[in-house]
Amino acid sequence: MMKTVRVELARRSYDIHIGPGLLDSLGQTVTSLGGIRQVVVISDTHVAGLYGQDVEERLKNAKLQTALLTFPAGEDHKTLPTVERIFDKLFGIRPAIDRNCLVLALGGGVVGDLAGFVAATALRGLRWLPCPTTLLADVDASVGGKTAVDHAAGKNLIGAFHQPCGVIIDVKTLTTLDIRELRSGLAECVKHALIRDATLLDFLEAHAEALLDCEPETMTELIARNVTIKAAVVTDDELESGARAHLNFGHTFGHAMETYLGYGRISHGEAIALGMLCACALATHRGLVETALQDRLESLLKRLGLETRCPGLDAGKIEAIMQHDKKVRDGKVRFILPTDWGQVDIFEDVSAREAQEALAVLE
Amino acid sequence: MMKTVRVELARRSYDIHIGPGLLDSLGQTVTSLGGIRQVVVISDTHVAGLYGQDVEERLKNAKLQTALLTFPAGEDHKTLPTVERIFDKLFGIRPAIDRNCLVLALGGGVVGDLAGFVAATALRGLRWLPCPTTLLADVDASVGGKTAVDHAAGKNLIGAFHQPCGVIIDVKTLTTLDIRELRSGLAECVKHALIRDATLLDFLEAHAEALLDCEPETMTELIARNVTIKAAVVTDDELESGARAHLNFGHTFGHAMETYLGYGRISHGEAIALGMLCACALATHRGLVETALQDRLESLLKRLGLETRCPGLDAGKIEAIMQHDKKVRDGKVRFILPTDWGQVDIFEDVSAREAQEALAVLE
Repeated sequence: MMKTVRVELARRSYDIHIGPGLLDSLGQTVTSLGGIRQVVVISDTHVAGLYGQDVEERLKNAKLQTALLTFPAGEDHKTLPTVERIFDKLFGIRPAIDRNCLVLALGGGVVGDLAGFVAATALRGLRWLPCPTTLLADVDASVGGKTAVDHAAGKNLIGAFHQPCGVIIDVKTLTTLDIRELRSGLAECVKHALIRDATLLDFLEAHAEALLDCEPETMTELIARNVTIKAAVVTDDELESGARAHLNFGHTFGHAMETYLGYGRISHGEAIALGMLCACALATHRGLVETALQDRLESLLKRLGLETRCPGLDAGKIEAIMQHDKKVRDGKVRFILPTDWGQVDIFEDVSAREAQEALAVLE
Repeated sequence: MMKTVRVELARRSYDIHIGPGLLDSLGQTVTSLGGIRQVVVISDTHVAGLYGQDVEERLKNAKLQTALLTFPAGEDHKTLPTVERIFDKLFGIRPAIDRNCLVLALGGGVVGDLAGFVAATALRGLRWLPCPTTLLADVDASVGGKTAVDHAAGKNLIGAFHQPCGVIIDVKTLTTLDIRELRSGLAECVKHALIRDATLLDFLEAHAEALLDCEPETMTELIARNVTIKAAVVTDDELESGARAHLNFGHTFGHAMETYLGYGRISHGEAIALGMLCACALATHRGLVETALQDRLESLLKRLGLETRCPGLDAGKIEAIMQHDKKVRDGKVRFILPTDWGQVDIFEDVSAREAQEALAVLE
């Protein structure tokens, strides 16, 4: 069983293939791209340990030259110095890489962001094929062409838009995923449901247990529906403005909480789950939506094993952090708020007091 | 007096303005781009010493926030560590930069390549405005959207295509240029004439002395004609293949000689001048063109003060270097050879012996 979602971007259109065991046929997949002679697999030490050898073997069996370049796992390493070390290895490969070299990103969001940036900037752009191994990377990073590394001054400050030539999502890799990471990805799926597709809420409610068990068919369906939503948003608006901002639903509050609590204390998905609850509370206070939306969101997040409370927050400090958030434009903080089931809009007139009051929903 | 050349690239089209004194009206130029609040000027220590203060003043007078970020002059510094230091300064600027920040590249080819790369990768792409200050950068780097830094393994291995939002060429800056650098730029103009426009050969012959004197009107005309040629080639073929390869005329031999002699021993333009002579000799031996082309090229280069001899070369070694040249594809070295006045074509069937014999023209 395999599902394919086409991302329509004119000359740069590509297919996302989703299904269990897709890494097994990687040699054939790469060969079908055409003109690839050499594949550089970029991964972190953790994922390379799990799948690196298998992946290299599949590629070698398809008569492709391969090299596996790794860096230490963790967001701490998503930096320009890591990129530099990868370049040192990349340009040391013999025979030397040329435009017929493919960069294969094997891993979660950090690997995809960094390997994509390497692909974007090596020889002024190599083709690249993300093979995400976390649910969050599957449904979020595999569409949009965003690549980046962090700088001490902030996350993702250094990067480029560089569309991949395809995406391979092997749902079997999700069975080795830490449960917290799986939940983090599910929070992202809830976000997609709330911004674009109320029927996806039904699906998540109907299959919560199967999803937490990584049941292959259900997971394939979930991912296909989510990348379809993300692709629709992104192709409308390739270079980030307008509708694409809807994807930041839950992020204004969420990012501020990540900063407030300190990175690593809370996962991105956990922060977004809490951020969505705050955004819903704010929208409810404004009378934009009924209380039922808030209640349904909260009970779904609980069923997915996500936290819905974070007591003892300093609302004033979090509000101050939001003011410094990178989404600040012309001095205004942008909030994405629900306006109906599966629908959101951008609001720039939220007062400091309203934002602080919304945080009370987490007490 | 000002000339404007439009580079047609659909949504990313831009204008190149050429004339004496254009830096004086830089504030107005930047304002007319629309939506720019902050300008980060990136330059090297040499050029910043000459024009940095003036440029910052013009921008401040137009109510723009400015910052001047410099790095030590010279190709040695066109590296990722320099980019990293520039990022540290860039992201330390207060108020923090956002998408409404413009990167202004003030300097020669090295500054343009590096500042363009910073613009391509800061916040996943900022607008940028090259203000080249050397003739080579004027006629070569200001069209094509190529940005890059060097790696120990080779030149320009790390980079991105990132089109500027305009180009400002103040021909007055050429009066402070070292004569060797001026000649190097003139060699590039001769190249454009040979690949696309035989009437430009007449112009160069008619005005050789005025050009060496940097006479503003003649220089403006020369640059306008050259960027028009380069723009025509590049817009035909934005992502480098086919016709764009014609711009590599003189480069297969030239690059190999730069490597053989050691970088810095010979300027890029000087190497290209010698490379063009070799390519013409090869074409003459093959009977593709008359001897007259070779003779006319040689006498023009001499009038422009460029070397036309480089005795004592080890032809075998240079041929071996060409085999390793990055333009090697599928094991074949590509030569761009003249086929008529103002016309060239790509040849992949040149034997090692033919290439070595062509080098004899420099004895």
